[in-house]
Amino acid sequence: MEFRIEKDTMGEVQVPVNAYYGAQTQRSIENFKIAQDINKMPKEIIRAFAYLKKAAALTNLDAGVLPKEKSDLIGQVCDEILDGKLDNEFPLVVWQTGSGTQSNMNVNEVVAYRAHVIHGGQLTDKEKFVHPNDDVNKSQSSNDTFPTAMHIAAYKMLVETTTPGIKKLRDTLAKKAEAFKHVVKIGRTHFMDATPLTLGQEISGYVAQLDHGLRAINNTLSHLSELALGGTAVGTGINTPKGYSENVAAHIAKLTGLPFITAPNKFEALAAHDAIVEAHGALKTVAVSLMKIANDVRMLSSGPRAGIGEIHIPDNEPGSSIMPGKVNPTQCEALTMIAAQVMGNDVAISVGGANGHFELNVFKPVMIFNFLHSARLIGEGCVSFNDKCAEGIEPIEANIRKHVENSLMLVTALNTKIGYYRAAEIAQKAHKEGTTLKEMAVKLGYVTPEQFDEWVIPGNMVGEIK
Amino acid sequence: MEFRIEKDTMGEVQVPVNAYYGAQTQRSIENFKIAQDINKMPKEIIRAFAYLKKAAALTNLDAGVLPKEKSDLIGQVCDEILDGKLDNEFPLVVWQTGSGTQSNMNVNEVVAYRAHVIHGGQLTDKEKFVHPNDDVNKSQSSNDTFPTAMHIAAYKMLVETTTPGIKKLRDTLAKKAEAFKHVVKIGRTHFMDATPLTLGQEISGYVAQLDHGLRAINNTLSHLSELALGGTAVGTGINTPKGYSENVAAHIAKLTGLPFITAPNKFEALAAHDAIVEAHGALKTVAVSLMKIANDVRMLSSGPRAGIGEIHIPDNEPGSSIMPGKVNPTQCEALTMIAAQVMGNDVAISVGGANGHFELNVFKPVMIFNFLHSARLIGEGCVSFNDKCAEGIEPIEANIRKHVENSLMLVTALNTKIGYYRAAEIAQKAHKEGTTLKEMAVKLGYVTPEQFDEWVIPGNMVGEIK
Amino acid sequence: MEFRIEKDTMGEVQVPVNAYYGAQTQRSIENFKIAQDINKMPKEIIRAFAYLKKAAALTNLDAGVLPKEKSDLIGQVCDEILDGKLDNEFPLVVWQTGSGTQSNMNVNEVVAYRAHVIHGGQLTDKEKFVHPNDDVNKSQSSNDTFPTAMHIAAYKMLVETTTPGIKKLRDTLAKKAEAFKHVVKIGRTHFMDATPLTLGQEISGYVAQLDHGLRAINNTLSHLSELALGGTAVGTGINTPKGYSENVAAHIAKLTGLPFITAPNKFEALAAHDAIVEAHGALKTVAVSLMKIANDVRMLSSGPRAGIGEIHIPDNEPGSSIMPGKVNPTQCEALTMIAAQVMGNDVAISVGGANGHFELNVFKPVMIFNFLHSARLIGEGCVSFNDKCAEGIEPIEANIRKHVENSLMLVTALNTKIGYYRAAEIAQKAHKEGTTLKEMAVKLGYVTPEQFDEWVIPGNMVGEIK
Amino acid sequence: MEFRIEKDTMGEVQVPVNAYYGAQTQRSIENFKIAQDINKMPKEIIRAFAYLKKAAALTNLDAGVLPKEKSDLIGQVCDEILDGKLDNEFPLVVWQTGSGTQSNMNVNEVVAYRAHVIHGGQLTDKEKFVHPNDDVNKSQSSNDTFPTAMHIAAYKMLVETTTPGIKKLRDTLAKKAEAFKHVVKIGRTHFMDATPLTLGQEISGYVAQLDHGLRAINNTLSHLSELALGGTAVGTGINTPKGYSENVAAHIAKLTGLPFITAPNKFEALAAHDAIVEAHGALKTVAVSLMKIANDVRMLSSGPRAGIGEIHIPDNEPGSSIMPGKVNPTQCEALTMIAAQVMGNDVAISVGGANGHFELNVFKPVMIFNFLHSARLIGEGCVSFNDKCAEGIEPIEANIRKHVENSLMLVTALNTKIGYYRAAEIAQKAHKEGTTLKEMAVKLGYVTPEQFDEWVIPGNMVGEIK
Repeated sequence: MEFRIEKDTMGEVQVPVNAYYGAQTQRSIENFKIAQDINKMPKEIIRAFAYLKKAAALTNLDAGVLPKEKSDLIGQVCDEILDGKLDNEFPLVVWQTGSGTQSNMNVNEVVAYRAHVIHGGQLTDKEKFVHPNDDVNKSQSSNDTFPTAMHIAAYKMLVETTTPGIKKLRDTLAKKAEAFKHVVKIGRTHFMDATPLTLGQEISGYVAQLDHGLRAINNTLSHLSELALGGTAVGTGINTPKGYSENVAAHIAKLTGLPFITAPNKFEALAAHDAIVEAHGALKTVAVSLMKIANDVRMLSSGPRAGIGEIHIPDNEPGSSIMPGKVNPTQCEALTMIAAQVMGNDVAISVGGANGHFELNVFKPVMIFNFLHSARLIGEGCVSFNDKCAEGIEPIEANIRKHVENSLMLVTALNTKIGYYRAAEIAQKAHKEGTTLKEMAVKLGYVTPEQFDEWVIPGNMVGEIK
Repeated sequence: MEFRIEKDTMGEVQVPVNAYYGAQTQRSIENFKIAQDINKMPKEIIRAFAYLKKAAALTNLDAGVLPKEKSDLIGQVCDEILDGKLDNEFPLVVWQTGSGTQSNMNVNEVVAYRAHVIHGGQLTDKEKFVHPNDDVNKSQSSNDTFPTAMHIAAYKMLVETTTPGIKKLRDTLAKKAEAFKHVVKIGRTHFMDATPLTLGQEISGYVAQLDHGLRAINNTLSHLSELALGGTAVGTGINTPKGYSENVAAHIAKLTGLPFITAPNKFEALAAHDAIVEAHGALKTVAVSLMKIANDVRMLSSGPRAGIGEIHIPDNEPGSSIMPGKVNPTQCEALTMIAAQVMGNDVAISVGGANGHFELNVFKPVMIFNFLHSARLIGEGCVSFNDKCAEGIEPIEANIRKHVENSLMLVTALNTKIGYYRAAEIAQKAHKEGTTLKEMAVKLGYVTPEQFDEWVIPGNMVGEIK
Repeated sequence: MEFRIEKDTMGEVQVPVNAYYGAQTQRSIENFKIAQDINKMPKEIIRAFAYLKKAAALTNLDAGVLPKEKSDLIGQVCDEILDGKLDNEFPLVVWQTGSGTQSNMNVNEVVAYRAHVIHGGQLTDKEKFVHPNDDVNKSQSSNDTFPTAMHIAAYKMLVETTTPGIKKLRDTLAKKAEAFKHVVKIGRTHFMDATPLTLGQEISGYVAQLDHGLRAINNTLSHLSELALGGTAVGTGINTPKGYSENVAAHIAKLTGLPFITAPNKFEALAAHDAIVEAHGALKTVAVSLMKIANDVRMLSSGPRAGIGEIHIPDNEPGSSIMPGKVNPTQCEALTMIAAQVMGNDVAISVGGANGHFELNVFKPVMIFNFLHSARLIGEGCVSFNDKCAEGIEPIEANIRKHVENSLMLVTALNTKIGYYRAAEIAQKAHKEGTTLKEMAVKLGYVTPEQFDEWVIPGNMVGEIK
Repeated sequence: MEFRIEKDTMGEVQVPVNAYYGAQTQRSIENFKIAQDINKMPKEIIRAFAYLKKAAALTNLDAGVLPKEKSDLIGQVCDEILDGKLDNEFPLVVWQTGSGTQSNMNVNEVVAYRAHVIHGGQLTDKEKFVHPNDDVNKSQSSNDTFPTAMHIAAYKMLVETTTPGIKKLRDTLAKKAEAFKHVVKIGRTHFMDATPLTLGQEISGYVAQLDHGLRAINNTLSHLSELALGGTAVGTGINTPKGYSENVAAHIAKLTGLPFITAPNKFEALAAHDAIVEAHGALKTVAVSLMKIANDVRMLSSGPRAGIGEIHIPDNEPGSSIMPGKVNPTQCEALTMIAAQVMGNDVAISVGGANGHFELNVFKPVMIFNFLHSARLIGEGCVSFNDKCAEGIEPIEANIRKHVENSLMLVTALNTKIGYYRAAEIAQKAHKEGTTLKEMAVKLGYVTPEQFDEWVIPGNMVGEIK
């Protein structure tokens, strides 16, 4: 490999001759040889930085502290980053300084050096037309840019991937709830036979869970919409022009099309990432919901001959390398594994969030890494589960009918007629002697056959169907 | 001990002769000998049941399915429970059936048998005037009463203990932020010296954290305000009179003075406890904030001679059994331990919430046990920290002044005058040679002494003070 | 209430006139009004302190730094504490200083003042014959006593409650595995029908889990056997006589009958509690095992008519307040709730363990509180599950036979005869058309009826039975 | 892109014309579009499969159920996989079926088709010389291969990356402990000044932590050394030749050079992954240790002028994009972020481990994904921290001396001379009036100046230096 020499305030560094990045990026590559092939700084953060650097350049231009030519060049490179043209120029990993300074500098260097090249310069020029710190990073600090990039990336992921994915699954389940609203089936509590409900009612519970989950996520967007930018080094806004905070937030809002505002308190915005903790709490709530839903689907579709077998889900692939013809609820498994991951990520984020000190939380990269991971897994996991499983859910009516008809818990309908204790006696004896409820109820003399038929009707036990 | 014989649907059981509870409570005592001295079902749940049973009796009366005499008796015993007069009658533990059925039956039995006694009967009477299942539990199931009690207890704890406690601390910190708004001190990022800010600004970040935390908790109240009652066994509302759900929720709202409503979807309300998971996510966010705040206070007050020593906190007790005269930040320690506990409780709740099956989540007791624990610890922990620590925070001006004056990071003020690179050179050389910034700046010829004095003024580096 | 005046280095304090504790205990009561009714310092810690104080007194006597009369008095009070006679004298809570100093002083005060009374003095005497700091706490610091008490309490709980409880359940399951070793049943993977195994084999997996769990716990005892005592304030052993560390550990070993030794490195023993973190990791592993086992038992016993229903478990109590005759797997539910709690406690402990600073970890109380909670819950939970559930497990042979006979996965036996692909075709078509395997196998012409009967024998598919 | 047609038991699938994989891999790509660019099945699992498939082929050859030509071909392709030549043929992600069946089939297909090509065939041939299921997967199931690959990969990572990394750091710290064993410094408990110790003693605590951590990891290797292979579909070993389990484990042991054995209980080995849970518990313990160590280093090196500043660590890179000359403890930050990640991964693993059902745990991919992540992060993180930070730790003697000399806690040395209470009075008054200890001690008349000088010598307060 060929190298050129770059310099930072600590001295000279060899960087690959064609890399747009410079000395500080190179130092980080060498100083943090930790999981470099699998834990790159998420690309969503790099893209968020592109919005941010462009917005900062525009704001600095407005404020008269950056010339138009430089502002335009910076904006142009940011657009290239957003188009994915410079993806290979961001080699740094999550496990670096906890402020994300090195990723901020990676962006500063790439923008500056690429701008210099667009401007007609050479990478090997000692002086570059655009300076990483004095121009690209003008009116900024890693300490306010990185958290700003965190919020931009998190917010975008939530509204572009996570909630649409959940919504898609929610809508499919709502359709199923409607479609199966008259399919009377046995209820199960404690995994034991209980009074009946309809399959539609059962699924409507999942819809309600996801509706609440969507609301929970939406509730956390307001804190995420607050941007740290303008706080610079410690939150005081040192080295920013007047009005900078509000203006740069407005530029970011315009560029992203999302309702970002400047954080009312910059000290909080640098020193704590409670917005990330709070929003991930909502993601974890959704993960908990998805675990419940996927478990139910897996169990309801179990069998085919020695399980519960009340619903059919699509056969997507051979399920076993040894058992021929086996088909498994694989989408349920992927989704429950995702739920486990999100529950774990939540702890990583909380530990990071709790351990900030004084003016800066230095667990920023690990927090956003886990956040984006969860947000994406939930969004894409819901779509996969929806497309390959939920859409194909169909009742297996024969099993459903058999289960509800045999149920001893239909006896509950007799509580208000003969009292809980005598009803219990019927159920217990029928269970013990293996009879039907009706046989035992009549045998014990508590009801006549006609009364039983009139009072114990599964379809009447499921309440009002909306 | 003397016993009497009580009966349930499984047969006879010996219970202590004067206990108001009956057979099912006694069975649970014998069947679950797990941490019986330390893990009683929280008293807040018992009280919530009292509201609920009284409301159910009133609703059943309205619906014409329970006679006034019985409804009145039930209400009267519930009032006794709320007054704490029957506390010893609820001996059951958290580690019982996951639906909380046994605690529901404990309440049913106590209410029925105490009512019977008020009505003039004897505990040893075979037939009681009020029946635990057919009267006290009328139009109810454990499956909808226990989650209703969970929401009542959780909501009450949040609004009566948790948020007032946080608010109290928040208000004290806001006063401190105002009081110290002109105390210029050194900033610290990465635990390293950074540019200055004021002590008031620093503390204002904590206030912002708590404000966000209060908002986060408030956002979760709407889901908690939904009551499962009326869903009965599986969510269909079997064995309830018409209009029961709405009416009983209205009664509970009136009795508690809190805005409870009937859950729009009862299947979700029985089968999942995402409301608890979501709300505890907000509590965990606050715990994370409190860990940050308490850590900062502990570190800022460290010393007295070999630490940071920028604030003084009250001396509440001797700090060491061996080091005479030692005083420690004990309130910070209690609060950070509470934060650790809440972070752990969050996982217990999530695991419980994720593992519901079909029509019923059977991790109800462990979920509400951990929830109430966290909610109370945060509320009472904040009050303790407030009263015994935060209110006494005072700056130690001598140390603050010394730190800010020595700081090399004041050089940041020169960035916009001489550029980042030359500013860095000044700081690095001053550090290496142990000089002041000014000496080095002048020595290197980048500024005149007059320029330095004009440009590098800590008080000018802290931005606009609001 | 009547009071007397007690003094510590900070001044005078009113304490209840008959309390054996003194000023510092009283200060803690007043300074930490946090969950005082539910989060007392665990009694196991108080007892551990009794061993420790007695051992220290004996060691100090040996070293000639404490007169025999005082040493004897101290030992006598410690015996009273161990007999539970002074339980009410330890009112402090977990949420105090993170070093547990106040609980150490609570013990010092009670021992000193009770000794003074035994010695013939009055609680109201200004000078006491035995001094809390200079006598009872001699050669000690909270910083080494509290971690020593943690290890004593943790070790004792593990060997006296936790592992015997696990062992009891393990032995019952081993008996069941043996008893059911020829009961051929269907296997289930992915919750779907798979090739057969015996019920004994299935249960033998649980036994193996618990055996591994017991080994895992035992592996952690060596670190727990190391005692901090002798490190005093920061690990250097200041103010201890020569040989103190080894001698006091020997005394504790003798008094407890457990193989305690002095920690080779006292700095680690005060500043970190990795032994607690490590040992709780083993407890959490067991919790994970118990969740699996209890879930399987719950699901295998599900029904009675619309579930899996392959085993019967004891009916311990009525299962529903509304559904008459319902019986639920309540012991499984208690055990899985315990598992959730332990998984949460693990995080609380880890967060505490990770946040020690310099010479002292100050999350000691929260760590041991959660540790003892988990250790006890697992031990008592296993006994409860064993006595009320596992011992009564019986196969329901009719269902077991039906499930295995209907299974399509018996086709796996044909893999080595006709190849995986043709075997798959048989299973898929039989499933689709609702036939038996044999019908379809013959219909497709891949085997003769005789071959099928020879090759597909469930009892031959379960491998060697040991 | 060009395609060819491949077939599995469900029908035809288009796969990229040059891919060595086949229908089932392609189905998985299409069915699980979840984080495909960032969550590939870890390459360590693919390599582990290569060992396993080669060992199975050799064992099948020995047993006479696979011809030598096929066994050789399979072995040859496995070697290619181990050499990294076929890395691109394994495109599947973690979020697939929970048994890892699709990754097992991915390996089966690649081995079979590549073998076919080596044997002279074409990828487009309808029949391949080596069959994925009937040859490569012979005597195996996903259900026993995947857990075997998990144990191989986990064990190798632990002994090749994790423990060497920890050991390297441990050895450096041990050297530092020795080097600084006479540097007397102030101790800090509760973050407050305490009695002195030496810097070497302080660091020796870290060494002890890591020694214990290494032992904890080693203790978990025995369970990880147990291989599931031979259990096939449900643990019974259906479709394996006699002696297969023991023989295949021996082959794997020989190929890897690691002491693998066959699991004594195959039911446990498929249905639970407690070995992974247990071993990760040890990793989490180490993470907790590393958090403590890295926090101490960060805090001890804080400053340079307004912090604690008792040690110097290497300046590796510019620390701030806005504050010139700033240098930060970036390696500490990376390591503490890793600790947070590992603490989160632990929960993901526990949730996965707890949720297995019946004969199979279907959280295998998420469990091993998190395990390998943690094991690698700790190993590589320790090396990075060692090389770029720990090796360069040096005391800053001036600050150390100043802190220890000013300390009020030196008064502890007077306890045994004048009693705790009078010593406390000296310290409290000296603090209040800002005097030295000696001045106050003499002023109060408790000691003469000569006595003070004789009794209060920091170097005598640090105990015996070994």
